[in-house]
Amino acid sequence: MAIAISRRGDVEPFHAMDILAEANRLKAAGKPIVSMAVGQPSDPAPLAVREAAATALAGGRIGYTDALGLAPLRQAISAHYAEHYGVDVPAARIAVTTGSSAAFNLAFLAMFDPGDRVAIAAPGYPAYRNIMAALGLEVVEIELDGAAYLHREHLRAAHAQKPLKGVLFASPANPTGAVIPQADLKALIEEAASLDVAVISDEIYHRLAYSAPDVTALGFDPDVTVINSFSKYYCMTGWRIGWMVLPEKLVRPVERIAQSLYISAPELSQVAAIEAFGATAELEAVKARYAWNRELLAARLPELGFALAAPMDGAFYAFCDVSRLTNDSMAFARRMLAEAHVAATPGRDFDPLAGHRYMRFSYAGSHDDMETALDRIARWLG
Amino acid sequence: MAIAISRRGDVEPFHAMDILAEANRLKAAGKPIVSMAVGQPSDPAPLAVREAAATALAGGRIGYTDALGLAPLRQAISAHYAEHYGVDVPAARIAVTTGSSAAFNLAFLAMFDPGDRVAIAAPGYPAYRNIMAALGLEVVEIELDGAAYLHREHLRAAHAQKPLKGVLFASPANPTGAVIPQADLKALIEEAASLDVAVISDEIYHRLAYSAPDVTALGFDPDVTVINSFSKYYCMTGWRIGWMVLPEKLVRPVERIAQSLYISAPELSQVAAIEAFGATAELEAVKARYAWNRELLAARLPELGFALAAPMDGAFYAFCDVSRLTNDSMAFARRMLAEAHVAATPGRDFDPLAGHRYMRFSYAGSHDDMETALDRIARWLG
Repeated sequence: MAIAISRRGDVEPFHAMDILAEANRLKAAGKPIVSMAVGQPSDPAPLAVREAAATALAGGRIGYTDALGLAPLRQAISAHYAEHYGVDVPAARIAVTTGSSAAFNLAFLAMFDPGDRVAIAAPGYPAYRNIMAALGLEVVEIELDGAAYLHREHLRAAHAQKPLKGVLFASPANPTGAVIPQADLKALIEEAASLDVAVISDEIYHRLAYSAPDVTALGFDPDVTVINSFSKYYCMTGWRIGWMVLPEKLVRPVERIAQSLYISAPELSQVAAIEAFGATAELEAVKARYAWNRELLAARLPELGFALAAPMDGAFYAFCDVSRLTNDSMAFARRMLAEAHVAATPGRDFDPLAGHRYMRFSYAGSHDDMETALDRIARWLG
Repeated sequence: MAIAISRRGDVEPFHAMDILAEANRLKAAGKPIVSMAVGQPSDPAPLAVREAAATALAGGRIGYTDALGLAPLRQAISAHYAEHYGVDVPAARIAVTTGSSAAFNLAFLAMFDPGDRVAIAAPGYPAYRNIMAALGLEVVEIELDGAAYLHREHLRAAHAQKPLKGVLFASPANPTGAVIPQADLKALIEEAASLDVAVISDEIYHRLAYSAPDVTALGFDPDVTVINSFSKYYCMTGWRIGWMVLPEKLVRPVERIAQSLYISAPELSQVAAIEAFGATAELEAVKARYAWNRELLAARLPELGFALAAPMDGAFYAFCDVSRLTNDSMAFARRMLAEAHVAATPGRDFDPLAGHRYMRFSYAGSHDDMETALDRIARWLG
């Protein structure tokens, strides 16, 4: 029998996920792995979230919902925009998605056709690039070359080279943690508008900046597409639940595509997520631990030879220049996992060009784990 | 600001989902809707499944898993192939997916490139066509024209017209309920092999045939791609959990794409699904109710003017020729929902060409609901 294997399926692996799979194999074999590879909080979802899920479980069938999500969840997200940002976003413009993963796929499918040029910053979240590649978009990677984040000038220069159809950026960013200051974010969005370039703003690390207040791109223009999720601040990674805020004209296209590609997001996660916005005290305590971990890593990683390559303004990542230790961060990460039993992510995930010189450490784990990991790395490096 | 709207996003709606959304709006407004529109069991997941979920919820974090799924779930699925079919499928060839929806998307992305011709039967499940269209595949709809299912001759004729890269079929089928007899299934797969056409076998309605035993395509050829799910027989629609069995050469491509497009299926659903294979007594009782509903519909629908257009061998659908009642099943379905408060799916979903003459009724609901619905339709048609 013929086995069909496509060319477009030949995307780069998401190396952090390969490291996770390897770490899980080692754990199953009894090795005491500390994982700093994947961006996931070690805390469970807030108590009220878990209680709502337990109640729904006991209450009967977990079924399909409307493709755009349960009405009460869309309303809760709408209320969050009013309360947290002072921005008016009607529930009708909100699509509940199966994590931000589904949101990116839906945004790319609904907004762009094969061959369209869409810009992202390098370093950046690998799934942007990999999903776009699988969908036939031309990924325009703008090397930040030492800049902390994407500036209007980067966008203008890339567009001048050959016109862009869209641009996608994140603030706070993965893997750098960089936050785009309010004035620069406004300038970037205005530049995109003047160039007729559609904007996707990835706001998944909102509520996880350590000094600047959150600014949503929706405050500057209602026609940006915003993507967010309950995975990070709300500690709900494995629940697979996120959302998009859409310009009115994209709501129906996204609904149509979501009906066939996803049917709906998991109902239990939707019911539970409604409670997430009320759990601020619990979640701020978790964030305080990230801040504590951040101090620790900011002090000790450079001592061990991992120079900080980015400001750690937000999210829960330390992005390090490892060129004092290795010229091949991929092999280095595999060796560190096998020998020191500490998992971290090679830079290749975030930047195909310069990534071999970088590594990313997630500090979303427990403080004890961070200390253990640093001690092990220190011993291992001898 | 420019709003990008793609051409490829202009896919047909999944009309059953539009009907579901409208039914949910009417329910929220206090209307006593009976839904026969969407293929979802009215029963909750089996008790052991719900208990496993409750235990996992109480136990701590719900996190990302390996992209291909939790090892114990992959092993449980592997054991199911040995027990239920007597077929040896190593766990390493099983990918756990976010419902069959993700499995279809992953199969199409990993197997086919834009422009590749892939055949499906008309009538057939609308998401096949809609996902393929969004991904740039050329959908070759083979009109069954009165045949109950796809025969080797259909495939040969379509391939002779212009070579096919793949073929996708389901047995039992949605919307017809038709089961492909073992000898014909074998012949179809042999024909595909001889033509170098890759095969995807949708087995989501297995364990829901009312007379013939289940036959998996894997029994004839290990290199077919099989898609299945916990949604139908196992009553886990809203949990979004399914699986694929892959030829060895497709495992890594699917893993790479899944890492970026899905990260992983919901962990809680994965943990819970492990228990589904042990719940046979409970699930066979549910199936017995479908069989009872099926008798009722087979008797009463034709009396009301809905001629059965297919054999109802399996699944939980009655596919009816409604040309005695209307020449526009879409408008008819909307009117029936608004006036008789019974939701059913217009045939357009399953067959863009001849669908206006057909409607699909799901009988996965309670027997009382079926009786209520038929009584209302009878009064409404008066």
